[in-house]
Amino acid sequence: MKILISEVGPRDGLQSVASIMPLEAKKAWIAAEAAAGVTEIEVGSFVPAKLLPQLADTAEVVAYARTIPNLTVAALVPNFKGAEAAVAAGAHKITLPLSVSETHSLKNLRRTHAQVLDEARAIVALLRTLPADRRPKFEGGLSTAFGCTIEGEVPATKVVELAEALMTIGCDEVGLSDTTGYANPAQVKDLVRRVRAACGEHALSGLHLHNTRGLGLANVMAGLEVGITTFDSSLGGLGGCPFAPGASGNIVTEDLVFMLEAMGLETGIDLPKLLAVRDILKAALPREALYGFTPDAGLPLGFVPASVHRG
Amino acid sequence: MKILISEVGPRDGLQSVASIMPLEAKKAWIAAEAAAGVTEIEVGSFVPAKLLPQLADTAEVVAYARTIPNLTVAALVPNFKGAEAAVAAGAHKITLPLSVSETHSLKNLRRTHAQVLDEARAIVALLRTLPADRRPKFEGGLSTAFGCTIEGEVPATKVVELAEALMTIGCDEVGLSDTTGYANPAQVKDLVRRVRAACGEHALSGLHLHNTRGLGLANVMAGLEVGITTFDSSLGGLGGCPFAPGASGNIVTEDLVFMLEAMGLETGIDLPKLLAVRDILKAALPREALYGFTPDAGLPLGFVPASVHRG
Repeated sequence: MKILISEVGPRDGLQSVASIMPLEAKKAWIAAEAAAGVTEIEVGSFVPAKLLPQLADTAEVVAYARTIPNLTVAALVPNFKGAEAAVAAGAHKITLPLSVSETHSLKNLRRTHAQVLDEARAIVALLRTLPADRRPKFEGGLSTAFGCTIEGEVPATKVVELAEALMTIGCDEVGLSDTTGYANPAQVKDLVRRVRAACGEHALSGLHLHNTRGLGLANVMAGLEVGITTFDSSLGGLGGCPFAPGASGNIVTEDLVFMLEAMGLETGIDLPKLLAVRDILKAALPREALYGFTPDAGLPLGFVPASVHRG
Repeated sequence: MKILISEVGPRDGLQSVASIMPLEAKKAWIAAEAAAGVTEIEVGSFVPAKLLPQLADTAEVVAYARTIPNLTVAALVPNFKGAEAAVAAGAHKITLPLSVSETHSLKNLRRTHAQVLDEARAIVALLRTLPADRRPKFEGGLSTAFGCTIEGEVPATKVVELAEALMTIGCDEVGLSDTTGYANPAQVKDLVRRVRAACGEHALSGLHLHNTRGLGLANVMAGLEVGITTFDSSLGGLGGCPFAPGASGNIVTEDLVFMLEAMGLETGIDLPKLLAVRDILKAALPREALYGFTPDAGLPLGFVPASVHRG
């Protein structure tokens, strides 16, 4: 089986750290990951530069990333205006976050659910005006799907309801995000099954998991058990300091790829090459902590990647 | 479902750190974990004091731990002589390690497989002379079961063969240890199924997993999927520095208990009380690093433990 790793470090990682990575370093990072075999990278977010100066050059990053063959260039869009900019820049995939906790939605996007769904409708209308070869894939990203630091428990019925709403409006798919690091494996299985039962098998292919409480890869295992084939992760767990309040704690791409390849699940990613990409991050962001166990422990003696294992 | 957490910090943790914990601190640690609801603790190892001065007081620790109600007091024994000492001290459970990699066995225990199996036979003969109420449970611990840092891949057939040999000799059960942190979830499932197919469902109940490459809890998930109900772990991941060569990297009891309880699997352990036990380790071993994500991130808002969830 083939698993798609969607690298989100250049967006989710960089938006969570104080340092601003120069455009040239971003390009080098993205190019190196693509050369290691990563086929999808979320390269930025079309938010106002005054809100996230770290991502102010997203349009240029998208334009550069599009020149890399066989790379799906993804971007986050907070609203219709962001989607317009993403389309203009030529993103292959756009994700509109919708926080299932309405309190969190109001606090982070300053929008109610109804307002975000209106943005989704406007984006669908825009995309339908585009020729097929210029129309990005449109994902609805259900954030705080596994719990909220303000509301606490987030009802599964609410997640399903909003997933259905996004699919009815015309999203191509939805994703579930463990924004707060609250998810556990039983919950991952349950929620994936519920959303798929309501929206169809193909409506949900991806999970965005965090490692805030150390359960990131266990939650990936749970996702695999119920047929999930796309996982977001961040090189070096960038932006994922688990020791700071409000930490995002993305799962670490290196550990994720090691686990999948060791299990015989092909990611198409060359692990030694991927591990070497950390040097670009270390050089460009000398003050930021990088995470991951596999980079420090090294690969097991006689390690066999999935492609060789199967070949 | 009820899951048994076997705390191995006082043995596996302490034998891996340079500091020597005073007897009184060991007693306080064991008492506090038992008070938090931990029902099995491996409190030491009956090895010569010159080899592991950290564990020289194991007989006294066992004697103390036996005074705690409802606590299974476990100890490691490297050979017949160690088993004699463990029986004299009154351990409830003894584990004889047998390294599936014979190279590793020769290097660590200076014994071939045949020699370790001879020790096992002598131990079984000893135990059979004891009255039932003084006879400890005897586990064969298959170390390097998932790979070896010297031999590389360890054949599953060899693991099964040695598991059968130990059960035939008269062990009550066998356990599988990921001594090197090489295990992956697919391998965990496969090996558990193979050993159970050869030795019977009840021959294998426990896994001793490490988090060396970050896959510890994912491997626990795999174990749960195939019916494993006992997991070893170490408070604060003591002895588990993932950044040092040869690190053991025990999975962290706090994160393991959080995962299981969040999934609705009862451990009988009170998480806030367990988290407070870290203070004893910090005070007694000020120079040793403690690990774990849940202790730093804290419990999710509105977290409901398994017992309440089910009640």
